[in-house]
Amino acid sequence: MPVYDDGAGWTGKGARMPAPALTAEEIADLLKMEFPQAFYDGCGLSIERVRYGETRVRKEFHDKSLRPGGTISGPTMMELADFSMYVAVFSAIGRQPLAVTTNLSINFLRKPAKADLIADARLMKIGKRLAVGEVTIYSEGIPEPVAHVTATYSIPK
Amino acid sequence: MPVYDDGAGWTGKGARMPAPALTAEEIADLLKMEFPQAFYDGCGLSIERVRYGETRVRKEFHDKSLRPGGTISGPTMMELADFSMYVAVFSAIGRQPLAVTTNLSINFLRKPAKADLIADARLMKIGKRLAVGEVTIYSEGIPEPVAHVTATYSIPK
Amino acid sequence: MPVYDDGAGWTGKGARMPAPALTAEEIADLLKMEFPQAFYDGCGLSIERVRYGETRVRKEFHDKSLRPGGTISGPTMMELADFSMYVAVFSAIGRQPLAVTTNLSINFLRKPAKADLIADARLMKIGKRLAVGEVTIYSEGIPEPVAHVTATYSIPK
Amino acid sequence: MPVYDDGAGWTGKGARMPAPALTAEEIADLLKMEFPQAFYDGCGLSIERVRYGETRVRKEFHDKSLRPGGTISGPTMMELADFSMYVAVFSAIGRQPLAVTTNLSINFLRKPAKADLIADARLMKIGKRLAVGEVTIYSEGIPEPVAHVTATYSIPK
Repeated sequence: MPVYDDGAGWTGKGARMPAPALTAEEIADLLKMEFPQAFYDGCGLSIERVRYGETRVRKEFHDKSLRPGGTISGPTMMELADFSMYVAVFSAIGRQPLAVTTNLSINFLRKPAKADLIADARLMKIGKRLAVGEVTIYSEGIPEPVAHVTATYSIPK
Repeated sequence: MPVYDDGAGWTGKGARMPAPALTAEEIADLLKMEFPQAFYDGCGLSIERVRYGETRVRKEFHDKSLRPGGTISGPTMMELADFSMYVAVFSAIGRQPLAVTTNLSINFLRKPAKADLIADARLMKIGKRLAVGEVTIYSEGIPEPVAHVTATYSIPK
Repeated sequence: MPVYDDGAGWTGKGARMPAPALTAEEIADLLKMEFPQAFYDGCGLSIERVRYGETRVRKEFHDKSLRPGGTISGPTMMELADFSMYVAVFSAIGRQPLAVTTNLSINFLRKPAKADLIADARLMKIGKRLAVGEVTIYSEGIPEPVAHVTATYSIPK
Repeated sequence: MPVYDDGAGWTGKGARMPAPALTAEEIADLLKMEFPQAFYDGCGLSIERVRYGETRVRKEFHDKSLRPGGTISGPTMMELADFSMYVAVFSAIGRQPLAVTTNLSINFLRKPAKADLIADARLMKIGKRLAVGEVTIYSEGIPEPVAHVTATYSIPK
């Protein structure tokens, strides 16, 4: 579960983004406690970048995720998307009880390669009650995305 | 992996439904071959009913599906929905290469109980290229649904 | 804008549903004030049935809704779905400020006939913060649905 | 219906994009014929940029699109998203019969300002049977998006 934070600033379209509320390591520690089913030693997930409301997560390739025909399974990609959105939510709202996924919609775009998956998650809204974001998933080294996800989270008071 | 087929006829709103293209046991055999990652001995899934374009699948409760707080994980429910939609597609189009999920959208409605999950899947469209269906997931014994899924499948030529 | 309420009771799967919070006429009056862009004299919408969390709305066929090829436009169906969900929300939570649509997802299933559209809306969850429902849209007299919608509403405090 | 084409090249992540199959003016002419319900003189839509699989469309602000409380209506935004996706599909596959929307999912993120809407559409997949894209809608002059749409189109043979 290596954790990298390139620390680079991020500037939206004409907006100056604040620093992330937590570092990648702090988020990793939180998720090991809050989300142990997805994030545990040997799970193959690593948080590679954390900015405010934005993150990159890598999922190591394992043969056991393969479906017949050599495709990585849909649920593997949905779990990766959900996990990376949790990282993005923590990066924006900080140390709080786990938000609850209310909707997740995935479009499967291409057959993934036998390679690591890279998930780029980005929040589009961080409200008091709801956070909404999108995740684009790539096979490492291939520019066309394999899946795209939008998801909504209910933020506990 | 017990397989039950209650054999009951089904009549839509003013339309007489044809018989299913395959029995529950034939579909189970196909899915063991085509979808072994989800459907294997000990996976906890059983096909309880098969009609034309309609099915009920049960997922046995396991503690290992639990997230902290006692919730069954989202990916567990997405996998169950996807699996039950495959059963429904096979019940309508018969022995064909596996269709490909192109979109899956899930609304999480309530915290599931510590109980078996029951997935009722129903195709709304069976076209030449696309099949579209919905799945409602319940905790056994509780009338309010825990999740609702719509999904689209691309049917190979 | 005729308003019919067949007054029939409704019983869910093993659950006794309460009476609707408002009658069809009370809801129609509210929507004329709150949603005048969609619901005005001559708009062609009529509320045909109101139960607790459940409604049927009819949209009269107009040539001006047609797209080339004789199809009723997508936005016409999306507006009908959104309107019928508002009716369902009012039937459950009563006289409150207008809820806000947060997500609407539509699957277009078949080319509609040149006929009235019938929208059957049903809430699947009525929480304190969110209501989630589905709408199935039919062309009058044809049993197969032309579109299916799921939508989420944020309920103001 | 002014049509601008800034003609700028576009380069994806490591991929060199081809030129658009049609210019903005050619697409506008096609859409006036194929989609006259949405695109007619006085509709307020203008195609501001066309690249391969990518477009920007502007919708002029009109008071008549307002809902009570000063919000631009949801169907107005859905129609804008659908229209801009059609432009993007034509920019990639050229002069062909109109594709058919099979799914459209919209997240409403913020209350729009009383200002023009800007829709940035981008195809994520252009297959033989299906095209999938996303649209982000802004109020002019405000960096945070008001809505985000994903949509799928079935491409006729």
